[in-house]
Amino acid sequence: MKTLGQMGEHAAIAALTAGLKATGDDCAVLPQPGSDYDLILTTDPLIENVHFTPDAAPEAVGHKAAARVLSDVAAMGAEPQYLLINVVAPPEQDFRTLGKMYDGITAVCKTFDTEIVGGDLAQGPVLELHVFGVGRAPRGEALLRSGARPGDPIYVTGPLGGSLESGKHLTFTPRIREADWLRQSGLVSAMMDISDGLATDLRHILKASHAGAEIDSAKVPKNRSLDQALFDGEDFELLFTVHANQADEFDFQCSEHFGQAFPRIGTITDCPEELLVDAVPLAAKAFEHFRD
Amino acid sequence: MKTLGQMGEHAAIAALTAGLKATGDDCAVLPQPGSDYDLILTTDPLIENVHFTPDAAPEAVGHKAAARVLSDVAAMGAEPQYLLINVVAPPEQDFRTLGKMYDGITAVCKTFDTEIVGGDLAQGPVLELHVFGVGRAPRGEALLRSGARPGDPIYVTGPLGGSLESGKHLTFTPRIREADWLRQSGLVSAMMDISDGLATDLRHILKASHAGAEIDSAKVPKNRSLDQALFDGEDFELLFTVHANQADEFDFQCSEHFGQAFPRIGTITDCPEELLVDAVPLAAKAFEHFRD
Repeated sequence: MKTLGQMGEHAAIAALTAGLKATGDDCAVLPQPGSDYDLILTTDPLIENVHFTPDAAPEAVGHKAAARVLSDVAAMGAEPQYLLINVVAPPEQDFRTLGKMYDGITAVCKTFDTEIVGGDLAQGPVLELHVFGVGRAPRGEALLRSGARPGDPIYVTGPLGGSLESGKHLTFTPRIREADWLRQSGLVSAMMDISDGLATDLRHILKASHAGAEIDSAKVPKNRSLDQALFDGEDFELLFTVHANQADEFDFQCSEHFGQAFPRIGTITDCPEELLVDAVPLAAKAFEHFRD
Repeated sequence: MKTLGQMGEHAAIAALTAGLKATGDDCAVLPQPGSDYDLILTTDPLIENVHFTPDAAPEAVGHKAAARVLSDVAAMGAEPQYLLINVVAPPEQDFRTLGKMYDGITAVCKTFDTEIVGGDLAQGPVLELHVFGVGRAPRGEALLRSGARPGDPIYVTGPLGGSLESGKHLTFTPRIREADWLRQSGLVSAMMDISDGLATDLRHILKASHAGAEIDSAKVPKNRSLDQALFDGEDFELLFTVHANQADEFDFQCSEHFGQAFPRIGTITDCPEELLVDAVPLAAKAFEHFRD
């Protein structure tokens, strides 16, 4: 009998969801007959000793739980509306810590006009927050991973790497405002957020878009080393591509709006799923749950 | 420092959500500008050793996880549309069991035209299923707990009690079809599902409606004893009230549609939150998580 540990997270998810329509995007995008908006749905668990350590500040843990979901909504260029939160905790959990986690959640929700409309509290062996996010995007306008085309330049919204050491993974700002502007520009061809690291997440765009990519390592904005910028997870910046023939117009508009253009780190190519960094193929390497 | 065990589940939820708009219904009901439908959102956790034992058939565990959420949607008279599922499991979890749980989930979803559109798989010490449900109800038509008025007769959709011993808690049919008919009838004044036991759940309607109730014990449909019908949880039948002056019309329409009327077990009174059984006040008694 195979265990989850032997299969790895990705293979297990693939097997469980084999019979389902799965888009592979950060959120499900669901057209609603008679509505001008598509429904945007996502969910993320945050588990003690997996996604945070018991010594992390509880406000920051709450912030991270909600902000990860808001980042998924941002990844679609969508507007977050509602969160629901399941809390699991042991009976000996002190309530004050839980209250501070909730403060962290409500603060980031307030910043982004998102309402907490439900949830549950249940007993379990360790502390967990399961956050379910609901948002909306104008019909047919949600930004998917599948829209990148050869020649499209590749961008990120900010510097990458070292998020776990620096603590950014607990305090990051979900790129809701940038995402809204990017969708409204009409110039973005594909988008996602960087949660598992640039190299791993870019491969998701390449797979969905049946394309390749060439990264110029000098152009990648780094918090620390190139290796960390490529492989560290939990940056929660946006990774996106822009229609090739509108890239200069895009840079101009960005500079007008944000004071500067986003860093252009490479270009989409026509070699399916080939990822080159400075013209050299990059070996697959990524953090995967349940595996070393 | 107070622990969750000292506070009890209900006080802890009340304290955490004090600053939020909470309706206290089985689902959040959210009007969407420009749409003919209100959005219906809910979430329920199912945790090993709390909501099911490790020896329970995995298909039944999956069924229960999804059916509880579908029952919450039914409680509003709403139509379920989508589920998202977070699975938590230890690395040594055998995959086959997980696959069977998923089979249980997908089977009940298929029966009620509900699509699984997302979720996540994460590592944790025990097996858990966190199910998020999304549905819709025609604008302003969702059935709330707050609409019961003195004189309204009280109904349940089926026999109560003994669900844990009989195994019904793992195999029950969520009352989606009945709920849809009840909402469309236009004759129901308040509704919820019975998850914590008739006595406890009827009190929720009484509190929300600022009313009392008188139950005729002989009329309560029982699987076992009256005590079990009143206090056992996990029946997942619907508990509802009907506009007093339309009760006979309602019974007639029910008989036409379902072949028989639903059991009428009592009447709403004008004594706020007073619950009488055979004219005697019923002491509060209910299962609450984190407490004995």
